[in-house]
Amino acid sequence: MRLYSMPSSGNSYKIRLLLALTGRRAEVVDCEYGSPALAQAKADGVLAYGKVPALALNDGDVLVESNAILWYLGEGSDYIPDAPVVRAQMLGWMFWEQYNHEPVIAVRQALLNYPDRADGATPERLADLLERGHNVLEVMERRLAGHDWLAGSGISLADICLYGYTHSAGTRGGFDMARFPAIGRWLARVAALPGYKGLLE
Amino acid sequence: MRLYSMPSSGNSYKIRLLLALTGRRAEVVDCEYGSPALAQAKADGVLAYGKVPALALNDGDVLVESNAILWYLGEGSDYIPDAPVVRAQMLGWMFWEQYNHEPVIAVRQALLNYPDRADGATPERLADLLERGHNVLEVMERRLAGHDWLAGSGISLADICLYGYTHSAGTRGGFDMARFPAIGRWLARVAALPGYKGLLE
Repeated sequence: MRLYSMPSSGNSYKIRLLLALTGRRAEVVDCEYGSPALAQAKADGVLAYGKVPALALNDGDVLVESNAILWYLGEGSDYIPDAPVVRAQMLGWMFWEQYNHEPVIAVRQALLNYPDRADGATPERLADLLERGHNVLEVMERRLAGHDWLAGSGISLADICLYGYTHSAGTRGGFDMARFPAIGRWLARVAALPGYKGLLE
Repeated sequence: MRLYSMPSSGNSYKIRLLLALTGRRAEVVDCEYGSPALAQAKADGVLAYGKVPALALNDGDVLVESNAILWYLGEGSDYIPDAPVVRAQMLGWMFWEQYNHEPVIAVRQALLNYPDRADGATPERLADLLERGHNVLEVMERRLAGHDWLAGSGISLADICLYGYTHSAGTRGGFDMARFPAIGRWLARVAALPGYKGLLE
């Protein structure tokens, strides 16, 4: 397997984190935003939809969409719960991440940290994203106040998925994480797992 | 099972369509936008996150997120492919739908058909959504030009998921569907399936 991965991207980091936690290996090709490596991968046509992350399998298939790649790599592991209801709850958090969380939590981080990539990082937009982001984080906080993990009683792909951009929401996104103590404890729980790797490790 | 469903919503329609195609039954509670039934369901606390669609199971669990509900109802059926790679490709289309397709294709339909619900349906926004929507539809067109279905060789949840808002993209969203003949043939293929039901049937 070869993983085309953007080092600074939470969507790519999710996959690197799952690989690290499950002890699986893949050749990782760093394709940073604007890098010659990314341009080369696009020119070679290996990215299918021009998007990173992408997982190229040994038989030539290329998987895209970070959460679908998580699913593929998680099959047969404890990261996909056995109970159908819990599996659906796990996927529910992962769809919610793409629709509600990423477009707010990740976008504000990108606007603040990569102003050269940013279209329209106006004060009004940043303020709007801040307010919406706190509402998004509150949804996680409510769940995590009473449970160690997002779906069911054990860690699942939902936790890896949402860790991707939540772990840096305060430091890189300016969100007020002191308001979300249960999220803080959950972040520490993930970071204490054997094999854990940080964003840039 | 009890399905809290918004009759006019493609996200709810996906689930009603899968139930119809697989011959499964659920009690359907119509919760139209702004209706007393929706207010009642929210007040009763049965919607978990205040969102529709929601599937209340007999043991009291409530599933949310339309695509996670599709997964739950599809387990054990032919709508979830056996091959892990195809299953991941199917999920890839479903995550793509929530991130790339719904926020453009569904939002333009909502702005045009429900101006009373719409925030900021300016001509500039509608024009932007039109152009972005055609780019989104082009991604589906490229796949469907060479394949009958979105993932693998048979119908899957990916087709049901994307049918939800694509079938009305022309009539309700003003997208130029004549540019996408392969999508047109795919829509007809779905509508010809035994048990098929339209949005308001």
